Amino acid sequence: MNANTESEGFSDAVVSGEARAGDSAPVAAASWSARLLRALLRAIGEPPIEVVLWTGERVVVSGAPVLSRIHIHDRATLFGLLRDPFVRFGDAYSSGHIEVDGDLVQTLSVILGDEQTREANPSILDRLARWVHRPKRNSLAGSRDNIHHHYDIGNAFYALWLGETMAYTCAYYPNSDATLDQAHIAKMDHVCRKVRLKSGDSVVEAGCGWGALALHMASRYGARVRAFNISREQLSYARDRAKALGLSDRVEFIEDDYRNISGRYDAFVSVGMLEHVGIEHYPELGRVACNAMKSEALGLIHSIGRNRPAPLQPWIERRIFPGAYAPALSEMSRIFEPWHLSVLDIENIRLHYALTLRDWLRRYRAAEERVRELFDGEFVRMWRLYLAGSIAGFETGTLQLFQVVFTTGQNNRVPMTREHLYSCAPAMSS
Amino acid sequence: MNANTESEGFSDAVVSGEARAGDSAPVAAASWSARLLRALLRAIGEPPIEVVLWTGERVVVSGAPVLSRIHIHDRATLFGLLRDPFVRFGDAYSSGHIEVDGDLVQTLSVILGDEQTREANPSILDRLARWVHRPKRNSLAGSRDNIHHHYDIGNAFYALWLGETMAYTCAYYPNSDATLDQAHIAKMDHVCRKVRLKSGDSVVEAGCGWGALALHMASRYGARVRAFNISREQLSYARDRAKALGLSDRVEFIEDDYRNISGRYDAFVSVGMLEHVGIEHYPELGRVACNAMKSEALGLIHSIGRNRPAPLQPWIERRIFPGAYAPALSEMSRIFEPWHLSVLDIENIRLHYALTLRDWLRRYRAAEERVRELFDGEFVRMWRLYLAGSIAGFETGTLQLFQVVFTTGQNNRVPMTREHLYSCAPAMSS
Repeated sequence: MNANTESEGFSDAVVSGEARAGDSAPVAAASWSARLLRALLRAIGEPPIEVVLWTGERVVVSGAPVLSRIHIHDRATLFGLLRDPFVRFGDAYSSGHIEVDGDLVQTLSVILGDEQTREANPSILDRLARWVHRPKRNSLAGSRDNIHHHYDIGNAFYALWLGETMAYTCAYYPNSDATLDQAHIAKMDHVCRKVRLKSGDSVVEAGCGWGALALHMASRYGARVRAFNISREQLSYARDRAKALGLSDRVEFIEDDYRNISGRYDAFVSVGMLEHVGIEHYPELGRVACNAMKSEALGLIHSIGRNRPAPLQPWIERRIFPGAYAPALSEMSRIFEPWHLSVLDIENIRLHYALTLRDWLRRYRAAEERVRELFDGEFVRMWRLYLAGSIAGFETGTLQLFQVVFTTGQNNRVPMTREHLYSCAPAMSS
Repeated sequence: MNANTESEGFSDAVVSGEARAGDSAPVAAASWSARLLRALLRAIGEPPIEVVLWTGERVVVSGAPVLSRIHIHDRATLFGLLRDPFVRFGDAYSSGHIEVDGDLVQTLSVILGDEQTREANPSILDRLARWVHRPKRNSLAGSRDNIHHHYDIGNAFYALWLGETMAYTCAYYPNSDATLDQAHIAKMDHVCRKVRLKSGDSVVEAGCGWGALALHMASRYGARVRAFNISREQLSYARDRAKALGLSDRVEFIEDDYRNISGRYDAFVSVGMLEHVGIEHYPELGRVACNAMKSEALGLIHSIGRNRPAPLQPWIERRIFPGAYAPALSEMSRIFEPWHLSVLDIENIRLHYALTLRDWLRRYRAAEERVRELFDGEFVRMWRLYLAGSIAGFETGTLQLFQVVFTTGQNNRVPMTREHLYSCAPAMSS
């Protein structure tokens, strides 16, 4: 359809007084469409949003000041929303059948904020929707398909907005002035310090993305790294980079599933892979980690999570990350407990992911014309919605980001305090 | 029976060559008792321990160098061990029917180390034992009985070995030179920093022991504290101390169950109470914490835990801590997940409890004559075994110590990093 109409400068002064009168005084001769829309808005918690229908009718059910305006361009889109609001909103936004006039992140946040409340007391409809939208399975072949869907759409695309490191996971902002690239390097150092990495250590990495962490461990800490990934595009990029940096002898990028890791190492790390593992495979991941760790090794798993078990937002799971799931800590414990792995440290850096995503979205929006050339307008809007929705997810507390450090059950050579993680300790990298 | 025969200077050179030949070459004409004992030692994993029977027979089944010698003084004691080794060893040690010649902690450690392995694959006997030894219930009345059993045996007794602070929980040793009292103060500061305590803050404490933390929060951080406890002896001590320190107007010690906490506070803390709550009450504790927390409050729960769900050692549960349980993290999540509480930080300081207990045991042993005057020899040995066994529990990784920091689900005013916990940050206490 058309270019984005989102504007940061939306003002609620333009909302008509009629619409703002709210549901208690229905507009005379409101259409069936407007009535159905009202019911839908009430069901999702009366967000302070004005909806403009293709008929020109304006609907607001909240008594609070309106934050943004959503345009629904035809009847079929509205009916789609009524049938499956979870998925259809995203699809219609992508195709341009829905447009948002106002701050996209804020608009999604007010909807997500209420979703959290509903999660606590799911209706039969919610439960049904969860079953319909249960994640795809992550068998060896299924994982390959699921990962290909997301990570093999082209390094050129990701290079437009991920920044220098090409790290596609939550960064760590040591202070509010840090740039995206600085925050990614700080995150990699944070991870290396958490596993007490030192020169000569051997590391196995399960799911290495474009290789930034593996290369950082080798170049800055003198580690030898074997890094596993099943995305061919990412591996090709990572190997080129290793060659360019002269690190090919210290970092081995292996195209294989984490389940085929062999050998024993001084550290096991997995950053941003757990989301794709599938909860039914958590004990298997724990067994792989346990077998890969020397008796005094430290392990680290970094993953998006939740405060309580709940499925991933189903549009994200269907269109962006097939097979993905963000676990609660009770679920993550299925990785560790069967193998007597001892959890030493869990840090929740949720708000750092909101900062990371805001940096990504800013860069993405600046590159939208280029993305349109690579793909099309629908793709542009789909990824814009995904990034904005993810910010909303982390800012509303719908999503968390857990870093878990663990070791084998009888290892007594563990750091006594965590002071070495912070700047008061001598930096371990040179 | 008699005074303790444990000696730190035990040498395995005195063990007879015959006994060290091990099981593969059974001593001619071994008694039925010796044969049964061999079966028992094999069942608990062939610890490198020599056992001397009342007949003078010496039994060793391990091929490894012998670490210590256990004397069993009569047939009834051996038969008791065969029926219920979990509880009878502790009872017989207390009564003097069993004596240990060698390092008591090390002796218990080799037995516990194997218990961990058995836990992973419990036999039917192990499962039966778990059921027989399931913990006592912690209803309001049950809790009162259980707590009275342990904490009301006399402040004079605890004052002999707990140190200046009378803190009866895991301390935190910022360096290896720290004394017990310094480590307890460092632990209280660690807790206060974790909940970002500042002057004027209101705090509710669930289970306050002898009041050390509540008084520290008021005197060093300027907080106002309401501290709940159901041990009358402890409260009496705590109130006297508040009066002596001129803090009665800032710290209120309340004789009531944590379930009756009311009001909303800037911080919720509970240090060393969860062990007594009972797993079936975890969601209730979470509800109490959630209701007691302002929307931007931080909470902290400090508890003994496990790497995987397992019952407390049954002699400890029966004789020392009725109703107690050390949860795995999957179990602790039942506190948080039902209420959308967000876990921000989990630190496992297991080895600090081993250090704390070693300091306590050293002081306890120096005070044993005084303990005997207050109680009797059986009591002296019972508590010696409990302290030594607890050291073994933490050093073998059978027990963990978790500090969990959490907040309400939608609180975005949380610390971005944990740097403020460490000495590089300006200390919050004056």
